[in-house]
Amino acid sequence: MILKKKSFEIALCQMNVVESKDENLERAVSMIREANVNGATLVVLPEMFNCPYDNDKFVEYAENRKTSKSLKAISRAADENNVYVVAGSIPEESCGNIYNSSFVFDDRGEVLDVHRKIHLFDVEVSDGISFKESNTITPGDKVTVVETPFMKFGVAICFDLRFPELFRLMAMEGAKLVVVPGAFNMTTGPAHWETTIRTRAIDNQIYVVAVSPAKNDELSYVAYGHSMVVDPWGDVVETAKEEETIVYATINEDMVNKIREELPLLKNRREDIYELIKKE
Amino acid sequence: MILKKKSFEIALCQMNVVESKDENLERAVSMIREANVNGATLVVLPEMFNCPYDNDKFVEYAENRKTSKSLKAISRAADENNVYVVAGSIPEESCGNIYNSSFVFDDRGEVLDVHRKIHLFDVEVSDGISFKESNTITPGDKVTVVETPFMKFGVAICFDLRFPELFRLMAMEGAKLVVVPGAFNMTTGPAHWETTIRTRAIDNQIYVVAVSPAKNDELSYVAYGHSMVVDPWGDVVETAKEEETIVYATINEDMVNKIREELPLLKNRREDIYELIKKE
Repeated sequence: MILKKKSFEIALCQMNVVESKDENLERAVSMIREANVNGATLVVLPEMFNCPYDNDKFVEYAENRKTSKSLKAISRAADENNVYVVAGSIPEESCGNIYNSSFVFDDRGEVLDVHRKIHLFDVEVSDGISFKESNTITPGDKVTVVETPFMKFGVAICFDLRFPELFRLMAMEGAKLVVVPGAFNMTTGPAHWETTIRTRAIDNQIYVVAVSPAKNDELSYVAYGHSMVVDPWGDVVETAKEEETIVYATINEDMVNKIREELPLLKNRREDIYELIKKE
Repeated sequence: MILKKKSFEIALCQMNVVESKDENLERAVSMIREANVNGATLVVLPEMFNCPYDNDKFVEYAENRKTSKSLKAISRAADENNVYVVAGSIPEESCGNIYNSSFVFDDRGEVLDVHRKIHLFDVEVSDGISFKESNTITPGDKVTVVETPFMKFGVAICFDLRFPELFRLMAMEGAKLVVVPGAFNMTTGPAHWETTIRTRAIDNQIYVVAVSPAKNDELSYVAYGHSMVVDPWGDVVETAKEEETIVYATINEDMVNKIREELPLLKNRREDIYELIKKE
């Protein structure tokens, strides 16, 4: 019988993403090393950790999975440090398209799964943020839930967070944690980041771990920061502010089970009145 | 051509519900009158406004629609004051069952629709709240969206708030406001009330108006209070504290339309990946 660990440590690398891809890769590798030294089992990088969040840069920085130096660097870091890594996301070139893709590595550096951002960030808020990610990025078309020895977890990227259907599907597939590399901005961050993260956790009685780049005023798109771990009761367990840092927390499967027993939401869904179907 | 009003005033009656049904009815009628004097078009009462939240009382206080003195009193108040009323909820007896039912009256006192609570409150939180509503109450089986001259709105009762599927369905049916008579308690209120209300508004880009009884320590179940109006950007527009009061706010359809245009969430749902179906 293989005993599953009932709890494990997670590290959220709120990296300061800069213009230089090489500097970003060095920084990511060094943060993975530091997270390992501090006992992390699972390390998470932010959305677009190797590239400024900018349509022109997505095209310029895009890499094919087969030849990607970014993925090679993270794979090696996962292997050398013996940690699982959700490699935030990178602009991934494939068959002439570019995806906003999150590669998940096991502790030997093998790719376990890839989540390609499903919901693209196309918004135009008056006196606020404007962005049209679909100008360069092609959306993914699959729900991603990864099986690991320590916990089954889902992956969603940034704007995916806004769609409760996706989180419900991941929970229904057995995810007890959803990892969200995401770069909200100075308009939507203060307004919606924490509240939405907390409600996804409360509704689905899961941990939600959201990892942003640090706030960097030198880039055209300024990320909000505030990476955080929210537990299945909806409490913010740990959070960063704006600066580069690593946030650590313990993810405890027993807490998921306890909350689901005390406040049985998932089993009290009225499937005779509504049904949520995965169609992919 | 009938011009629809683009905005209207709503009044949230955070009543102090007491043991006596007659006192509760008098209080409700007097608050409807006061709300009308202050310019409200739509007046909302709290969940179980005529009855303490208690399984034994639900049985004792239950009334049949045809002979209900509670409904008669509210109908008359709606008519006399020329206001629409969402009559919180009452224990409604029908064919030997008891429902937790919200009757919606137009400004002539006619019943427009009835929402029977779909999701019953059966929880047992260690060192917190325990309650089993299904011991006495039969769940409803219909999604309720009401058409009025001023706005199409949905109705959900308390624990219904916890299910994002229901809110999504109401928004997809055209609701731009959801009214939630609800009595969270001193465990779940501080933990989940505001966060969940705000995220339903953010996700669906609707107003959410939640109306609780006032906190009354003399009852066996102590309501949290904190009735509030949240706008479609997720901001708390107005909120009560614990005491009896009427909260007023302006509901502005233009704001719903503006937010939906700037941050197009509803039309960016990935219906090729997931589908939410109403089965009732």
